[in-house]
Amino acid sequence: MGSTGVRIAIDAMGGDHAPAEIVAGAVRAGEELGVTVLLVGDPQQIEAALPPKTNLAQVEIVPAEEAIAMDEEPLNAVRRKRKASINVAMDLVKQQQADAVFSAGHSGAAMASALLRLGRLPGIDRPAIGTVFPTIKAGKPVLILDVGANVDCRPKFLEQFAVMGSAYSQYVLGTPEPKVGLLNIGEEDTKGNEVALRAHQLLKENTQISFIGNAEGRDVLSGDFDVIVCDGFVGNVLLKFAEAVGGVILQILREELPQGLHGQIGTALLKPNLKRIKQRMDHAEHGGALLLGVDGVCLIGHGSSQAPSVFNAIRMAKEAVDNQVLQRLRTQYQALERESG
Amino acid sequence: MGSTGVRIAIDAMGGDHAPAEIVAGAVRAGEELGVTVLLVGDPQQIEAALPPKTNLAQVEIVPAEEAIAMDEEPLNAVRRKRKASINVAMDLVKQQQADAVFSAGHSGAAMASALLRLGRLPGIDRPAIGTVFPTIKAGKPVLILDVGANVDCRPKFLEQFAVMGSAYSQYVLGTPEPKVGLLNIGEEDTKGNEVALRAHQLLKENTQISFIGNAEGRDVLSGDFDVIVCDGFVGNVLLKFAEAVGGVILQILREELPQGLHGQIGTALLKPNLKRIKQRMDHAEHGGALLLGVDGVCLIGHGSSQAPSVFNAIRMAKEAVDNQVLQRLRTQYQALERESG
Repeated sequence: MGSTGVRIAIDAMGGDHAPAEIVAGAVRAGEELGVTVLLVGDPQQIEAALPPKTNLAQVEIVPAEEAIAMDEEPLNAVRRKRKASINVAMDLVKQQQADAVFSAGHSGAAMASALLRLGRLPGIDRPAIGTVFPTIKAGKPVLILDVGANVDCRPKFLEQFAVMGSAYSQYVLGTPEPKVGLLNIGEEDTKGNEVALRAHQLLKENTQISFIGNAEGRDVLSGDFDVIVCDGFVGNVLLKFAEAVGGVILQILREELPQGLHGQIGTALLKPNLKRIKQRMDHAEHGGALLLGVDGVCLIGHGSSQAPSVFNAIRMAKEAVDNQVLQRLRTQYQALERESG
Repeated sequence: MGSTGVRIAIDAMGGDHAPAEIVAGAVRAGEELGVTVLLVGDPQQIEAALPPKTNLAQVEIVPAEEAIAMDEEPLNAVRRKRKASINVAMDLVKQQQADAVFSAGHSGAAMASALLRLGRLPGIDRPAIGTVFPTIKAGKPVLILDVGANVDCRPKFLEQFAVMGSAYSQYVLGTPEPKVGLLNIGEEDTKGNEVALRAHQLLKENTQISFIGNAEGRDVLSGDFDVIVCDGFVGNVLLKFAEAVGGVILQILREELPQGLHGQIGTALLKPNLKRIKQRMDHAEHGGALLLGVDGVCLIGHGSSQAPSVFNAIRMAKEAVDNQVLQRLRTQYQALERESG
């Protein structure tokens, strides 16, 4: 499929800055990436949010009557509000009118909607949320999953996460042979809690991935791993800690750098460099989280997503579609099912 | 007990830089804190490591024939090498010839030795390792436990960690009424894995602590919590990630700050301020980890400990002794046992 044909359904009503920032990021993606964006939500609000000179050839508006608020219980809300923007967007994928979906709204609702409307890929017990962290090696991110969908995991779930993560790393992030690690508390095979010990064994025996062993907390940002699997409890704690720590360090820099006269002059001279550092540590630059294991390409943005994050997430969605990640995963899972009999 | 009477047993042979850095830090503590340090290990090596003008009034050397190496299986080594420096140091506490013990050697061996020689405090199922993190609020650290001793925890272990952590925060770190949090993936009571859900309930009902609710990954460094409890798996991942992230940020600063002519001049001007930032993020400034739940005051140093870390750990040990943490914990546990009994 040529890239001009890629169509991405956007939940225009989801997120703290919806619809303005969502529409702005999506329109830019339409213009710069050559995708068609299907903006799902209240047509009046969406039209009001369109930038003045929007090229309408790349934009379609799909009406949806309702939206799901951040404080609603996800499964109930998704079931009750059948015409909510997230449901309508998922239906577009289900009906093959779109190739992928993006939402910065209630992530639990996006997950519930994807499960109910698209279903799981064959061979997958539980979908996982994967997120991309920058590492110490520039241009060499690491995909961590699960970061919150499954707080209690069985070892075989972690194995499935590894297979899915490996495919995404290869076909979306462009890693030739992704090195997979298991998040654990030591390097040795014998380290870890009960789930990690059994998962280690399964990963070692799996021939579809390049499992290189346990990854400790200190290895997450080393760039030595391309994919790191963990349960959604530890993954979520790690993600939120990592997101916050950037802000903590920036605050320490802001407090300490301008101390004294030399400090003030030095800080003024370094302004452009400090801005670049902020960008390099900024999570938003690295796009949305991937919902892996459902039968469709789904990207989930942070609730606080602004236009640049939306743009990056749509770029990731396009990569996934262009590189036929879903089709490849289906094939791999079929092989996995044959293997396990 | 007056502070002049505090005696600390030091495993002089444990750690990457033993005995030189261990002895240097201990001797400084003897001089500046008025404690007596009992240096346990090979007398010849220890004497050779004593700084030239050491005040020998504050230093005793206690011979030990062996030492436990970093790669030995801890429980076996502790049992087999009965006269290893860590065992001799623990025995000094057991025989009330010392009030506390410090080791930067094999932490698993220190834990095994403490369990075998000192035993557990009444009412405690599992000892935990607690470590102090700096937070965004200067001078307001947070004690995290467990960071590695127990990879699979039952809810009541987490409750015991909270009681012990609270006592240490109050009587060692000087927090008037420590705010306790449960590391979890959301603020709401209904969030978390099975263990966290049940632990939340126990913590809420415990009247001996000030439990203020769940702490997410983003809250760890916020300064809003004084004590955060978690199982040793997630705690260890978090600790190692946090230790590494400081280095990652410093490397990014080193790469990006001196870019361009303005960058080079600015960086030169900022040299003293950057050094202060490095110190503020440095884990070593905050001393050793606490081994909580054994019947003795035990401080565990990082294998890479140098003299300043050793000094800080000894200061923490002295605080714990001066403030009778163990005696207070015994009383609290007795109350806890009466309550649950």
